[in-house]
Amino acid sequence: MTPTIEIQNITEAECLGLMRSQPVGRLVFTENALPAIRPVNYLLDGRDIIVRASQETWISRLDGSVIAFEVDQIDPRSHTGWSVVVLGKAEFVTDIDQLVRLSDPNHRPWAPGRHDRCMRLRAAEITGRRLALAG
Amino acid sequence: MTPTIEIQNITEAECLGLMRSQPVGRLVFTENALPAIRPVNYLLDGRDIIVRASQETWISRLDGSVIAFEVDQIDPRSHTGWSVVVLGKAEFVTDIDQLVRLSDPNHRPWAPGRHDRCMRLRAAEITGRRLALAG
Repeated sequence: MTPTIEIQNITEAECLGLMRSQPVGRLVFTENALPAIRPVNYLLDGRDIIVRASQETWISRLDGSVIAFEVDQIDPRSHTGWSVVVLGKAEFVTDIDQLVRLSDPNHRPWAPGRHDRCMRLRAAEITGRRLALAG
Repeated sequence: MTPTIEIQNITEAECLGLMRSQPVGRLVFTENALPAIRPVNYLLDGRDIIVRASQETWISRLDGSVIAFEVDQIDPRSHTGWSVVVLGKAEFVTDIDQLVRLSDPNHRPWAPGRHDRCMRLRAAEITGRRLALAG
């Protein structure tokens, strides 16, 4: 019997666990009324996504926008994997106590330049889907 | 000397070569006025992205929309990798000769169900960025 592939929804708790396993995700937003996407490294703060960026870049323009953030891991051989999407509003952290707490040495931005902006994606909705081989 | 990371633009020819090396990318679109993203398997037809889908799914609603498609590969250890984004209009292939030509046996959709819709993302713009360690 050929195995078929099933799509299963993932609980929010499991989504958060999967996101903790990956260092890189993709910010999805609108730029000049067109869909845009950029990979970034990130960390989780509770249910929120934290991304560091320099002041001059595209990321600063997201302040106040509703954006999405996606993390996935897909095995092209077995055709299995998962994808988690966080939807919410982007805001910039200015509170110094928060900035200190979020200054995780494991979360150095990979891109060059100064990174004096800290973006929080305040998670309003977290959804996940798993592709799995069914018996 | 600590290596620094540089961002370099990639030529369109190189973008196409990199996309040919990967079976899975991400469709980026707008759903109920909110940013949305879904991983899909795909193939390249010239500069265009071809995705197969069932008639009933979200993908059918993209007909005529401007959407983005992203493929990336990032090594979390070395902090190097690349990301390619294709921007253009989604249209559905109905011409039978084209459908036959595009019925690549290596491009079976992974998700379950019937897949009688064939979407072409007509590439208007292809951009790529490479993160690379600089000397």
